[in-house]
Amino acid sequence: MRRFSFLFFLLLSSTVFAQSKLERIEPMNWWVGMHNPKLQLLIHGNQIAGYEVRIDYPGVKLLEVHKVENPNYLFADLEISTTAKAGKMTIGFFLNGKKRFENVYELKERTQNTNRIQAVTNKDLIYLLMPDRFSNGDPKNDIVKGMKETKLNRDSMYYRHGGDLQGLINKLDYLKDLGITAIWMTPEIENDMSLASYHGYAATDHYKIDPRYGSLALYKTLVDKVHEKGMKIVKDIVHNHMGTEHWFFKDMPMKNWVNEWPVFTQTSYRDEPVMDPHASKTDQKKMLDGWFVPTMPDFNQRNPYVQNYITQNHIWWVEYAGIDGLRLDTYPYNDPEYMKDWANKIKAEFPTLSIFGETLVNSAAAQAYFTGGNTVSRGFDTELPGVTDAVMKNAIYEALNGKSGWTDGVFRLYTTIAQDFLYQDADRNVIFLDNHDMSRFYSMVNEDLNKYKSGMALLLTLRGIPQVYYGTEILMKNYSNPDGLVRSDFPGGWVGDKSDKFTAAGRTPQENEAWNYFRTLANYRKNSPALQSGKMMQYVPENGLYTYFRYLPEGGKTVMVIVNGDDQAKNLETARFAERMTGATTAINIITKEQLNTLKTIAVPAKGTLVLELN
Amino acid sequence: MRRFSFLFFLLLSSTVFAQSKLERIEPMNWWVGMHNPKLQLLIHGNQIAGYEVRIDYPGVKLLEVHKVENPNYLFADLEISTTAKAGKMTIGFFLNGKKRFENVYELKERTQNTNRIQAVTNKDLIYLLMPDRFSNGDPKNDIVKGMKETKLNRDSMYYRHGGDLQGLINKLDYLKDLGITAIWMTPEIENDMSLASYHGYAATDHYKIDPRYGSLALYKTLVDKVHEKGMKIVKDIVHNHMGTEHWFFKDMPMKNWVNEWPVFTQTSYRDEPVMDPHASKTDQKKMLDGWFVPTMPDFNQRNPYVQNYITQNHIWWVEYAGIDGLRLDTYPYNDPEYMKDWANKIKAEFPTLSIFGETLVNSAAAQAYFTGGNTVSRGFDTELPGVTDAVMKNAIYEALNGKSGWTDGVFRLYTTIAQDFLYQDADRNVIFLDNHDMSRFYSMVNEDLNKYKSGMALLLTLRGIPQVYYGTEILMKNYSNPDGLVRSDFPGGWVGDKSDKFTAAGRTPQENEAWNYFRTLANYRKNSPALQSGKMMQYVPENGLYTYFRYLPEGGKTVMVIVNGDDQAKNLETARFAERMTGATTAINIITKEQLNTLKTIAVPAKGTLVLELN
Repeated sequence: MRRFSFLFFLLLSSTVFAQSKLERIEPMNWWVGMHNPKLQLLIHGNQIAGYEVRIDYPGVKLLEVHKVENPNYLFADLEISTTAKAGKMTIGFFLNGKKRFENVYELKERTQNTNRIQAVTNKDLIYLLMPDRFSNGDPKNDIVKGMKETKLNRDSMYYRHGGDLQGLINKLDYLKDLGITAIWMTPEIENDMSLASYHGYAATDHYKIDPRYGSLALYKTLVDKVHEKGMKIVKDIVHNHMGTEHWFFKDMPMKNWVNEWPVFTQTSYRDEPVMDPHASKTDQKKMLDGWFVPTMPDFNQRNPYVQNYITQNHIWWVEYAGIDGLRLDTYPYNDPEYMKDWANKIKAEFPTLSIFGETLVNSAAAQAYFTGGNTVSRGFDTELPGVTDAVMKNAIYEALNGKSGWTDGVFRLYTTIAQDFLYQDADRNVIFLDNHDMSRFYSMVNEDLNKYKSGMALLLTLRGIPQVYYGTEILMKNYSNPDGLVRSDFPGGWVGDKSDKFTAAGRTPQENEAWNYFRTLANYRKNSPALQSGKMMQYVPENGLYTYFRYLPEGGKTVMVIVNGDDQAKNLETARFAERMTGATTAINIITKEQLNTLKTIAVPAKGTLVLELN
Repeated sequence: MRRFSFLFFLLLSSTVFAQSKLERIEPMNWWVGMHNPKLQLLIHGNQIAGYEVRIDYPGVKLLEVHKVENPNYLFADLEISTTAKAGKMTIGFFLNGKKRFENVYELKERTQNTNRIQAVTNKDLIYLLMPDRFSNGDPKNDIVKGMKETKLNRDSMYYRHGGDLQGLINKLDYLKDLGITAIWMTPEIENDMSLASYHGYAATDHYKIDPRYGSLALYKTLVDKVHEKGMKIVKDIVHNHMGTEHWFFKDMPMKNWVNEWPVFTQTSYRDEPVMDPHASKTDQKKMLDGWFVPTMPDFNQRNPYVQNYITQNHIWWVEYAGIDGLRLDTYPYNDPEYMKDWANKIKAEFPTLSIFGETLVNSAAAQAYFTGGNTVSRGFDTELPGVTDAVMKNAIYEALNGKSGWTDGVFRLYTTIAQDFLYQDADRNVIFLDNHDMSRFYSMVNEDLNKYKSGMALLLTLRGIPQVYYGTEILMKNYSNPDGLVRSDFPGGWVGDKSDKFTAAGRTPQENEAWNYFRTLANYRKNSPALQSGKMMQYVPENGLYTYFRYLPEGGKTVMVIVNGDDQAKNLETARFAERMTGATTAINIITKEQLNTLKTIAVPAKGTLVLELN
């Protein structure tokens, strides 16, 4: 089954077709000077396995060429020595000793630039957006001929809406002003699926930006512009699955390219068997090898060809675009041994890159299990630097919505953070209140603006890397079920939208109040070493008040945060906080700029949160 | 303040008083051939610090004599060499070079006997009882003249009821028949407090059995009889505090013998600051140094004299009586560094002794933090072998009383056990459903006999060391608040009780049904290596059914347990359990003895639990 359009062939500009036998070689190109000298080329073409492959390029050795079940594939193992120079390498395809055609494969020079591949750390504030739903900068690419989804329908959450990379580029100044320092888009690679292609988690080509979003070159431009503005980019990558319309799913190299089952078998979505010392192999297999949904075939990550393909693809993207961080989708569903190997290989190539995995699990212990360098996963180190901290999210909701009790209300938050001993470094956890798969925060606190402010204050002052979901700053709301409205368009992102909430004039007074609160705190955080990467000290909640400090042991401004989980205004006696408050005589409320001239007793409004800079 | 009665002097039989200066030397005696050659004697007597101490005994060196703030104390450091022989050693007290009086201090031979100091392990079933409330074998000691509590009042939970060691000795055959293999009494050392002295956690003499329970000799007799019957003894010890009527609290060696506060300060009862990397010193101090209640002064465990005193006392009891296990009261309230040192010293003397700490904490991670050899407590190993598994208790209640959901109902139990990766060895956890501080299990399941049976089945088939609270087998009930009725007398333990529930005739039909269920399973367990120390395999619950297996990898009978958390009877398809069921064709229901001749589908009653032996 060959379905490649002419457009697609044009993209493979470095390939010369002597005959129509060769369809693609991946990775699209490679670089000299990589840490790992090995490279495995996937070569795809009709009956390509009948050809002999020869390479004659200084410093490059063709180690082995593997034939696999499907004669339309070859896998060629290369070794690129440290002496190899960048240039165009000819790959020859021979039949009976005669060259029948060749491919020109480029080995590039690695780009050296200090603002590439920066870490995304607790100094940052990540803004998560869905590119189809944020801003439409180029209406010409809304519908791309030849692609399977043919309609644009902004009235339905399941069709494409037209947002794109150019739209995001247009809004970078907005984000920078808001205090954002890093952008995470849901996947922007090609998803040529016939239904719901907008979500991005069903890849159909690992080396292509979805044409509805833009081009490879535009993606690189986006990353460069983000870097120019002092911000960073996180790329959302999916190891676990692809879309059923993926070109290599439709012409699989071998049967075990994906996890096969006698009848369709869905994952259990239960991470417990991965870590449970009492787990059965049956339950482990169902979790790891079961398919996420019927339209997303599950990669067999124990297959070394699959391993090489995925790992090289991720290395390719980072080196190509200079991405600063990777977010790993559905982390616990992947083969643990492979993911460890992947992480080691990625970190070897890009020591400054940040990596965090999506781990929507049920306890701090389970969450910590997946983090690298933790010591709970006996004898097995995942090597995964960071995780999405869903346990913290749940605890913040309980603090805001629950009633204070031994382990409830603010105590849930307190006891959750007390379990940070589980992590090698909890500062690498990405903390958040919602994302594209969850009901929006503002709805989850019943559209209570006080709780909204408390949530933002916690998000921006607790330990970890804060992540906010697009539109939170303008009080976007809705529940994930049943209608998917949490993926609504950002008003003003489309020409002709009836209001433009990217501007103060387009926002309601209440939206501006929220927006200003968020912006003030986000920008304060940008310049507060204590909030960015200071230590945290928390106190046992008393009288419904939860108090913590962010501080620098070496000196500098300390930030004090007081959360009132109760419906009543309270006075906080501060004598017990002497360890962190000694020397401080006044404080500034970061939001209101109000000065507190005595700190002995501090008034805290009902269900309110104070963020104070001590002086 | 000298308040020692004549009776007390008689007990110190090895002491010869030349004058009334010397009141006591502790430990009461010691042994040759201990692992640690060091011994620190606490010497108490009016103005004893004015005397010079001399010891002349082969192999014993007096290293140093410490004077402390209170002149009524001396602390003498001895070194007992490996060549020292058992015998009576004279300790001379000199003034101006002249011996004024002496004490004969005995160094005994250690007892070598294989049924002493056996481990209490997952092969055992522990029966916890309060000696004042179980059985009154000796009415003569119900009230002891000269002691501060002068009344016996069986109608109130806060007065003494008269139970004693002889009562327990009388019931050993009952316990053995029931399937019990280990007995844990709440503390039986002297609590000469004027109120609520029965509970035992307010010691007033560390070297004395409370005379209302019996004597030192009778305690040793009890232990010997327990051993003769093939059972074991766990002693309940309290490191953290004593009673305000303790002789050395009333004449303290030094001010910092206890943790002092400017005004009375209670512990926060929050273990989080002990493990929280973000904790303040203030919160740590309040947890560790705050007093448990006003009548229980908190030992200063950073004081080396206190350390030596407590550690030697515990060593003394184990060596004296041959105890098999120690249960450590209020474990998290103790100084962590001291407890680690204590554990190392105890384990060095008694490698076969079992030890478990009371840790009533809020998460598996917090619980694991306190266990030795866990790896979550970075850089700090508590060296504590076991804990009381309160997290498992909560999970069992949720499985029995909750509604099945992603993390609720039987899923709570499943996810809790999946976190066993946190422990070095979860088989050392003591699992339980209630104790003297908690509402009784039968009340907590709303007196539902089906749930009672499920609870007993879980308790006796899950991993860990099961512990049952006295009277559970006869459906004793009640809530811990507000009336303390969970500490009611075992009916029949007192002559003249209107019913004797130690006998079938004294029990109602329902009580006999419960009793027989419990006894059947407990006795089956006694002979089931799979249930005692086999591995566990659990499966993700499906359709409201939670299924697990206990098995021996090397072969032998496998036990299958099926818990139905729903209100409806269910049929369990067993195909997914092939990993554990292959080869098995029939099964026996352990309780009903019913044989299952096919295992393909198993019928499980509503809210019922099946325990099946596979054949």
